[in-house]
Amino acid sequence: MNIASKIFNSHSKEDGDFFLAMTRILGFKPRKLGVYKKAFLHRSVNKRDKKGNPLNYERLEFLGDAMLGTIISKHLYTEVPAGDEGYLTKMRSKIVSRKHLNELGKDLNLIEHVESKIPKAHFGDNIHGNVFEALIGAIYLDRGYTYCEKFIHDRVIVPYVDIEQLEGKVISYKSLVIEWCQKQKYSFEYEVYEDTGNDPVKHFGVKLYINGKVMAKARATSKKKAEEKASKRAFYALQDRISKN
Amino acid sequence: MNIASKIFNSHSKEDGDFFLAMTRILGFKPRKLGVYKKAFLHRSVNKRDKKGNPLNYERLEFLGDAMLGTIISKHLYTEVPAGDEGYLTKMRSKIVSRKHLNELGKDLNLIEHVESKIPKAHFGDNIHGNVFEALIGAIYLDRGYTYCEKFIHDRVIVPYVDIEQLEGKVISYKSLVIEWCQKQKYSFEYEVYEDTGNDPVKHFGVKLYINGKVMAKARATSKKKAEEKASKRAFYALQDRISKN
Repeated sequence: MNIASKIFNSHSKEDGDFFLAMTRILGFKPRKLGVYKKAFLHRSVNKRDKKGNPLNYERLEFLGDAMLGTIISKHLYTEVPAGDEGYLTKMRSKIVSRKHLNELGKDLNLIEHVESKIPKAHFGDNIHGNVFEALIGAIYLDRGYTYCEKFIHDRVIVPYVDIEQLEGKVISYKSLVIEWCQKQKYSFEYEVYEDTGNDPVKHFGVKLYINGKVMAKARATSKKKAEEKASKRAFYALQDRISKN
Repeated sequence: MNIASKIFNSHSKEDGDFFLAMTRILGFKPRKLGVYKKAFLHRSVNKRDKKGNPLNYERLEFLGDAMLGTIISKHLYTEVPAGDEGYLTKMRSKIVSRKHLNELGKDLNLIEHVESKIPKAHFGDNIHGNVFEALIGAIYLDRGYTYCEKFIHDRVIVPYVDIEQLEGKVISYKSLVIEWCQKQKYSFEYEVYEDTGNDPVKHFGVKLYINGKVMAKARATSKKKAEEKASKRAFYALQDRISKN
């Protein structure tokens, strides 16, 4: 009997659904399901534990925020050996900016699981980032540092952390590619399609055609990101071609 | 052949001394000695790695600061279940305050190992805390999260984190005890003596006499802390006695 069916039998169907949803989001099986439930509990529900302490995601958010900062710090320390303390601090705040965290939470569609007395439409954008941080706090408590690091690596660093772009050296590869095509009088087209495959999160695929030929392909969790990724690939391929001419 | 003598043979005597000093401070054997050396390297030495990147403790400080914040956050999360996010944040900043970190670094006498072109007397107080943070960063890189957590637990949480005192509920147990003795017209005396034993760091012992009898004993890394610890013990013993009368 697998863990999911154990939960189906011993708990409610709701718990089983939540377990499966968490497994998809996390990329591993949660152990203490209650901690994850807390990560999605809005204060408006007004839940309390046996001792009367409020139960909602805000304390987990405090924990997840700290852990996220640490993992990103370690990544920057290793990846940018030339950056001094001030530079590393600046890069870290760009990566863990409110805007960025909201985007991350939105892409994982975390709000779908939020339990609240307030209609979800009434929430501002920050709930996405707050719940994302709380989720990291829950992973830390449930599975410890190593799982936390892996989750942040897979969900934040790999898809989002492009140090050159953060440095503002390149604002958008898409605009660089379009500019180049226009200068060369080449036609270009971004063909976008849904390509979710086995992923829990919606994915988009993009083919970038230049003069009718596929120049680059990419896949990401938003159209914009997929276009940007394909543009970056095309940009480097084009640079390569230009330097060979 | 033990590790220390291996280092004596394969490296310089200086390395061997540094290895032993680090082992005393850390409570475990360092693996990558170079990382710890960096944690004590002041920018005035102007060292660079092979690629020309500056080598000093400032980048490690950035890393250690983040890790310290995370471990303290986890401790507070667990120990203060009734505290909300705002409360936890306030408590954390008290614990990792500049003043507190400087005290920690001073108690471990870290400055003794700092390599610098500037005379040590010219440094401000902050060097103690900065090097302490850098040391945490070095542990993180050398031995990972678990060793970091243990070091912070042993060197910060156990000796320094008294949540009641941080909350300002009790400013000083010593003043409470003195006040009580004066009210009762009891004599009191704090007898302080050096009691370092096998510890790498200087320790002080205190006996608190009330009406000529030893009421409490304590041991800590400063006279003030030892007195406070003995007072706290006496305070609880006295409360106990009062409630039984």
